[in-house]
Amino acid sequence: MQFNAIQIATLLGGKIEGSPDAKVTHVAKIEEATEGAICFVANPKYEDYIYSTKASVVLVNDSLQLNGTVSPTLIKVPDAYISFALLLEKYTEMMTQNERKGIEQPSFVAPSATIGKDVYIGAFSYIGENSKIADGVRIYPGSYVGRNVTIGECTKIFAGVKIYDDCIIGNHTIIHSGTIVGGDGFGFAPQSNGEYKKIPQIGNVIIEDHVEIGANTTIDRATMGSTIVKSGVKLDNLIQIAHNVEIHENTVIAAQTGVSGSTKIGKNCLIGGQVGIVGHIHLADGTQINAQSGISKSIETQNLVLNGSPAFDYKTSLKSQAIFRHLPEMQQRIQKLEDLVSKLTEIISVSQNIDTGK
Amino acid sequence: MQFNAIQIATLLGGKIEGSPDAKVTHVAKIEEATEGAICFVANPKYEDYIYSTKASVVLVNDSLQLNGTVSPTLIKVPDAYISFALLLEKYTEMMTQNERKGIEQPSFVAPSATIGKDVYIGAFSYIGENSKIADGVRIYPGSYVGRNVTIGECTKIFAGVKIYDDCIIGNHTIIHSGTIVGGDGFGFAPQSNGEYKKIPQIGNVIIEDHVEIGANTTIDRATMGSTIVKSGVKLDNLIQIAHNVEIHENTVIAAQTGVSGSTKIGKNCLIGGQVGIVGHIHLADGTQINAQSGISKSIETQNLVLNGSPAFDYKTSLKSQAIFRHLPEMQQRIQKLEDLVSKLTEIISVSQNIDTGK
Amino acid sequence: MQFNAIQIATLLGGKIEGSPDAKVTHVAKIEEATEGAICFVANPKYEDYIYSTKASVVLVNDSLQLNGTVSPTLIKVPDAYISFALLLEKYTEMMTQNERKGIEQPSFVAPSATIGKDVYIGAFSYIGENSKIADGVRIYPGSYVGRNVTIGECTKIFAGVKIYDDCIIGNHTIIHSGTIVGGDGFGFAPQSNGEYKKIPQIGNVIIEDHVEIGANTTIDRATMGSTIVKSGVKLDNLIQIAHNVEIHENTVIAAQTGVSGSTKIGKNCLIGGQVGIVGHIHLADGTQINAQSGISKSIETQNLVLNGSPAFDYKTSLKSQAIFRHLPEMQQRIQKLEDLVSKLTEIISVSQNIDTGK
Repeated sequence: MQFNAIQIATLLGGKIEGSPDAKVTHVAKIEEATEGAICFVANPKYEDYIYSTKASVVLVNDSLQLNGTVSPTLIKVPDAYISFALLLEKYTEMMTQNERKGIEQPSFVAPSATIGKDVYIGAFSYIGENSKIADGVRIYPGSYVGRNVTIGECTKIFAGVKIYDDCIIGNHTIIHSGTIVGGDGFGFAPQSNGEYKKIPQIGNVIIEDHVEIGANTTIDRATMGSTIVKSGVKLDNLIQIAHNVEIHENTVIAAQTGVSGSTKIGKNCLIGGQVGIVGHIHLADGTQINAQSGISKSIETQNLVLNGSPAFDYKTSLKSQAIFRHLPEMQQRIQKLEDLVSKLTEIISVSQNIDTGK
Repeated sequence: MQFNAIQIATLLGGKIEGSPDAKVTHVAKIEEATEGAICFVANPKYEDYIYSTKASVVLVNDSLQLNGTVSPTLIKVPDAYISFALLLEKYTEMMTQNERKGIEQPSFVAPSATIGKDVYIGAFSYIGENSKIADGVRIYPGSYVGRNVTIGECTKIFAGVKIYDDCIIGNHTIIHSGTIVGGDGFGFAPQSNGEYKKIPQIGNVIIEDHVEIGANTTIDRATMGSTIVKSGVKLDNLIQIAHNVEIHENTVIAAQTGVSGSTKIGKNCLIGGQVGIVGHIHLADGTQINAQSGISKSIETQNLVLNGSPAFDYKTSLKSQAIFRHLPEMQQRIQKLEDLVSKLTEIISVSQNIDTGK
Repeated sequence: MQFNAIQIATLLGGKIEGSPDAKVTHVAKIEEATEGAICFVANPKYEDYIYSTKASVVLVNDSLQLNGTVSPTLIKVPDAYISFALLLEKYTEMMTQNERKGIEQPSFVAPSATIGKDVYIGAFSYIGENSKIADGVRIYPGSYVGRNVTIGECTKIFAGVKIYDDCIIGNHTIIHSGTIVGGDGFGFAPQSNGEYKKIPQIGNVIIEDHVEIGANTTIDRATMGSTIVKSGVKLDNLIQIAHNVEIHENTVIAAQTGVSGSTKIGKNCLIGGQVGIVGHIHLADGTQINAQSGISKSIETQNLVLNGSPAFDYKTSLKSQAIFRHLPEMQQRIQKLEDLVSKLTEIISVSQNIDTGK
């Protein structure tokens, strides 16, 4: 990487303040930047670094008001975070010009499978019977694609992903290593002798376009029909998605969250890490759930913010949590009140000889 | 799939109401069924669908009382859920007549390993020295079976399962993709300099018969002796079972639950998702634990139902949780009481000149 | 294994009480020991077994005071737990004299990769371009090592580990099956149309020396710079470590815990299972966190012990949790106080005709 500020400003459509010739050799976080670095400030709490950084170029928001002199060249853009992401993307594109292509050996491709153009299939990967791999797909080493699976254009399957029979993956989707798509849903019928009988799981999983799924996440196939992850959904690592769940467009779920069977999650929801959601409920579009919460019933109103286990209104829950820390004092206050009231009652009943109901 | 109602009723031993010739081409959920579908109603809350469904055949419980006219042919059976499971099973049997068999290449089978009859070993699977694979076992691609491992008859190991040395898997057991059996237990001895010394983990894991284990679950080997999963146990995805744990017959555990070292879980327990159970305790047979609970001490009485973290009696805990949501109001009530009592105390001490202890 | 007590005492530098010729054929837990077993007692609650065990040899602490006659030979050492670990280590060394070595086929080693001496590379493992595998490294079957990866001396990578491009693993480190090192961090910029744009993750993961990582854990690569796991850290199974996290020396984290992006955890911390830690905070050295806790802000003071979600001081939190169980009674006490105070107020306002503010 060897650019100057004016090249980057042109690429991003930004406005330069400072030397247009400042040399950029690498990207860095502003708090760690050294000479030659380009970095960005979008969050106000990092603004102070602008006055002390050794970075050569800093991307900032148009709206930034300076309170002192700055040494790096600034490039002003409407949204510094977005522009920086764009820059990183260009950078990685350059770095990946030697992107993987071709079919490495040994790999296993069933004769009845269909393989598109410009595909990468890494060594030790397995493509089962009747599966269709579209143009531009990259399947990294040691992945398993069962029978009758469809993988759409330019989708990237990292090393060691396992996709069971009959599942459908869309276009421009990314699945990280170790994720399991289409394992059997957890369905068993109790028998009178205490044993359980397996309910065959004959549905599949459908993952649409521009989805990203992290590492070691599990998405179970439907008992019947489909478990569905709609376009634009982003799932982090180690998430559990049970059978017949549906997650609608552009919902984002953080790591280690679990969604139980047949629950439908709306669009544009934001769900924190280690959240648990029971089965057979529905969450309205725009629902936001704080980390470690437990959701035990449907949320019908859009854009609610929830917290706690069981979860309720975020702001109220923070108050309850704050009081929880002081329950020992609250208990003492009640004890003291009881003593006082008992004493008052005694005084009054003595002096007035009235039955106070005690 | 192409049957008529009478064939299915005969298969299931059910009684027909409506046309015995109704054609069935596929299975569906009653709320999504189209013409040609067979579906079932076992849960009363789905009964209303019977009057509006376009399904051709519906399995229902003998005990169902109709309140209107129905269009599909009904097949009455003692337990519609069980019968439907049976039907699905027959259906999947038919679909899997072309079940995988044989040893795909390339795969790795140590010369000292023993391979039974009618076994499937998928490409890129590894069978280590002295391991014994019984008749009818199916090991999907990319699985790893270490040394001295035993896998019993008709057990199914899905793609990418890893089984460490010396572990024993029973008969008719199913292990889903990405599950790790026999990794080292988490045991370290603290040293005086703050470092930790690894305690070698020289035990194994024993999984008995008719067990099903979901995807990406981890079951650690014992420090000494065995970590044991008894017959009929069902474990969901992403569960952590630590070293020297024992789980007894027909216990069911939902996803993302963790069981710490040396804990013994009784028979026929039902444990929800994201539960945490501390080490070195014992749970009595029939214990039921609600999702996200934390169990920090032994449960000696059978069939208790527990909730919360730390967990206690389910019904009481629901009351505490309900009050928790109203802690801010409770705090205000106490504040108001304090004000009132203070005022009363003042009035009385003024009027009667009595020390009220305030 | 066939030793006598004197040989073991010599190996461990211990002092014998009882027959120096007692024969040892295997190791066992004291509560399960049979003749020929060697076992240990370090925890006082297991001391009673010393008087009834059938073990042939028992390792005990120097400080142990006997209250009766014992049948096995005792070997007294300063720390029986440490000595037993040492013994197990020697035992496993003996058992692993036939340790795996050499490069099994088929495996994939890029021509530009560098492979040290005495290395084991299992079948179906993949070593990408420009990666460096140091002397004595053992990579079990079905593992994936991307491009430009460095793995230090004597490190052990179990079956099916996936290491993305550019990551660095130190010396004498152990990574268990199914763990994913270097998957993309979870970073997306929201767009005005509700979609999310991926932030390229161009950093890496650095894991230092003598680290042990359990099975199916995920450690994401940094957006820029490095996610860092320092020397001596021990991570259990199914843990999530997000991008740009740092975990400092000799910190121990139990299973299913999640650490969010950019958080720095100090040295010698002890973090329980299923803990959640938010992003962008710092935990001081020696912080101890109880299982299932949630940490939502930085901990500046060293050696604090925390509990709860959100977490606060351990001892206070236990009191709050105890009171939580009795919230229904507390509510009744408040109700009763309100009734009494209302009655008292009425009595006084009637008898004294005073406005009590009610």
